[in-house]
Amino acid sequence: KINGDRLWDSLMEMAKIGPGVAGGNNRQTLTDADAEGRALFQSWCEAAGCTMGLDTMGNMFARREGTDPDALPVYMGSHLDTQPTGGKYDGVLGVLGGLEVVRTLNDLGIKTKHPIVVTNWTNEEGTRFAPAMLASGVFAGKHTQDWAYAREDADGKTFGDELKRIGWVGDEQVGARKMHAMFELHIEQGPILEVENKDIGVVTHGQGLWWLQCTVTGKDAHTGSTPMNMRVNAGLGMARMTEAAHQIAMAHQPHAVGAVGHCDVYPNSRNVIPGKVVFTVDFRSPDLEKLTSMRAQYEVKAKEIADELGLGLEIEPVGHFDPVTFDEGCVTAVRSAAERLGYSHMDIVSGAGHDACWINDLAPTAMIMCPCVDGLSHNEAEDISKDWAAAGTDVMLHAVLETAEI
Amino acid sequence: KINGDRLWDSLMEMAKIGPGVAGGNNRQTLTDADAEGRALFQSWCEAAGCTMGLDTMGNMFARREGTDPDALPVYMGSHLDTQPTGGKYDGVLGVLGGLEVVRTLNDLGIKTKHPIVVTNWTNEEGTRFAPAMLASGVFAGKHTQDWAYAREDADGKTFGDELKRIGWVGDEQVGARKMHAMFELHIEQGPILEVENKDIGVVTHGQGLWWLQCTVTGKDAHTGSTPMNMRVNAGLGMARMTEAAHQIAMAHQPHAVGAVGHCDVYPNSRNVIPGKVVFTVDFRSPDLEKLTSMRAQYEVKAKEIADELGLGLEIEPVGHFDPVTFDEGCVTAVRSAAERLGYSHMDIVSGAGHDACWINDLAPTAMIMCPCVDGLSHNEAEDISKDWAAAGTDVMLHAVLETAEI
Ligand SMILES: NC(=O)NCCC(=O)O
Ligand SMILES: NC(=O)NCCC(=O)O
Repeated sequence: KINGDRLWDSLMEMAKIGPGVAGGNNRQTLTDADAEGRALFQSWCEAAGCTMGLDTMGNMFARREGTDPDALPVYMGSHLDTQPTGGKYDGVLGVLGGLEVVRTLNDLGIKTKHPIVVTNWTNEEGTRFAPAMLASGVFAGKHTQDWAYAREDADGKTFGDELKRIGWVGDEQVGARKMHAMFELHIEQGPILEVENKDIGVVTHGQGLWWLQCTVTGKDAHTGSTPMNMRVNAGLGMARMTEAAHQIAMAHQPHAVGAVGHCDVYPNSRNVIPGKVVFTVDFRSPDLEKLTSMRAQYEVKAKEIADELGLGLEIEPVGHFDPVTFDEGCVTAVRSAAERLGYSHMDIVSGAGHDACWINDLAPTAMIMCPCVDGLSHNEAEDISKDWAAAGTDVMLHAVLETAEI
Repeated sequence: KINGDRLWDSLMEMAKIGPGVAGGNNRQTLTDADAEGRALFQSWCEAAGCTMGLDTMGNMFARREGTDPDALPVYMGSHLDTQPTGGKYDGVLGVLGGLEVVRTLNDLGIKTKHPIVVTNWTNEEGTRFAPAMLASGVFAGKHTQDWAYAREDADGKTFGDELKRIGWVGDEQVGARKMHAMFELHIEQGPILEVENKDIGVVTHGQGLWWLQCTVTGKDAHTGSTPMNMRVNAGLGMARMTEAAHQIAMAHQPHAVGAVGHCDVYPNSRNVIPGKVVFTVDFRSPDLEKLTSMRAQYEVKAKEIADELGLGLEIEPVGHFDPVTFDEGCVTAVRSAAERLGYSHMDIVSGAGHDACWINDLAPTAMIMCPCVDGLSHNEAEDISKDWAAAGTDVMLHAVLETAEI
């Protein structure tokens, strides 16, 4: 078993970097705080005897050697970046859980045949630079590096420039590594495990996603002196499209969700009818047919709304992945580790996207989930217990040991 | 008649300060650009032989002496601040038109019995610091100066600190001045004069207004892993309340308007269900009963929407004035000046709020409006013709001459 106290201490130590305003974290990707978190992680890995690799997307790879020089490594990992008002565990648990597995193997003097690598994937959250899981996506060949470098944040700064600015561009070609397998431990970010009173979620599938960025254009005009019938109100269009996204998700129940999380109104003045609104709809389902149908219905409905109000409308997909089925062998390794260790468990579908969803295309992959209080995530109040964290990491240790062979 | 070319040149000169991004202006109140515009106006006034007074709210008063030392001054004026994406004429025409009247009197060597004062009222727009017409409101005793000084912009900077920072706090006690009368020339900011093909709008009334700032609170949560029935979605609440404001205004037709111009979503991340949205509803009508009824209906409907979605809701009024009836004598002076000069004219209701609406409570007041292209205002594309500007200023010259007596 891993050392739950040591894991918890490391989680708390990392949470000091990029503190939020309400007990959580704001350690967004490629900020100074992100650089500081990376440096701390690197120092811990080196203290645990690992050597650090860094690729051109800033992905970090801490390697513990194996006994067979020809064996491909077994990977663990997730991400250290957070939402602007994020929690202390989303992503971080998967990275520091991986480190804890290495530390435990060191404590016990266990050598594995396959090397073990703990990874921190760059820009998993996708808030500052869309899409999410950007650097694992480039690693998996889903996007080109040039395209990723050109992603812009709200201030027009590019991913490439910011990665350089914080000093974390590596030499290693992104995606050059081959993997024997990969395991990602993550908090559920939803309510199911807690409601079902299970320690461990054995993740068999992941939801697919569409992010549709909608730009609605009307005409800036005075809210007082412009008669109702002369308005071209982009704000009203946004309101109706937000409702439409909700209704379409409701019509696809169960196993489908939809919402608008990001919305910028221009010029955003109390006495100006909005001339432009940019917002993003997030649709998800584990069922490809539902996912496709939600997008298609939304595009038709949004166009109808725009036409009725005389608005311009552009819809640009800014994030997409298909539903994922994880590797049967890896999933079985996770399930039997939970079983062997006596943890209660259930099979579960990941509601969120994860780096593992991309890596699953390259190598046998699975995920381990642990509960989080009230299913709350992407919220500074995100919370887990020390026992939950330890149980998830124990299961990862055992699944990795089985896969990396002693 | 005034010198239309000189007036136009001054308008173009002022428009160079705080340029916008699309041919208009961003010279928001108490910015460095505002300070620069004030200095230019002061230099012009002094060159025209006026002495400049400045009160503790930063209101500027350029005085041309009269022949009777006991006579109260006749005022003209409006504001030099603009919307973030504003036009070159909204407010500016009324200030520089007043200056042009003074310049014309100088050219013609005309002395008036009453002194004449040209005013630049601080923070008319109300975008950076709500409410609109803030400094004329303090002048008219509608707000205390302490309250006005404490108004905050989106960055938490206060009106008082920013006024000091740009160096335009005067010695004169705000509201100490007595007025014989006041005239405000302004672009219509609506489509009626152009559609009716009239040179001059004789403003008999002004619409009343309610600005209701709504804070909707839900629960930040993950857009992917939070089931639809567990969401407390503040963004969806905002969308429904935006639609409600629109429907309520439509149900009060004619002579009523309503819209949401300002809307901030938190944390504004594509994969976070909004935990909070702050937005402002703007309702207006020249009919007090309709104005009151729109507010009341909205408050009931917004509460219903919040309750249905489990959201918290606070509604804070951040701007209000009752409908205004301008002074019959001053209105008649405007109408007969237009008649005498041979300009086509019609009586009109002001759709927007103006400094004149507050001053009307203190002294006989009227407004002169000139058309603007497509009724467009609060838009960088706001446009007027040189002839329209000259005609409005001619009418002001004659109305002022009649009131200030030769
Ligand atoms: N795990 C997680 O929140 N990832 C961000 C991408 C997503 O929104 O699913
Ligand atoms: N004239 C003008 O746009 N004033 C600002 C206050 C308002 O919104 O009516």
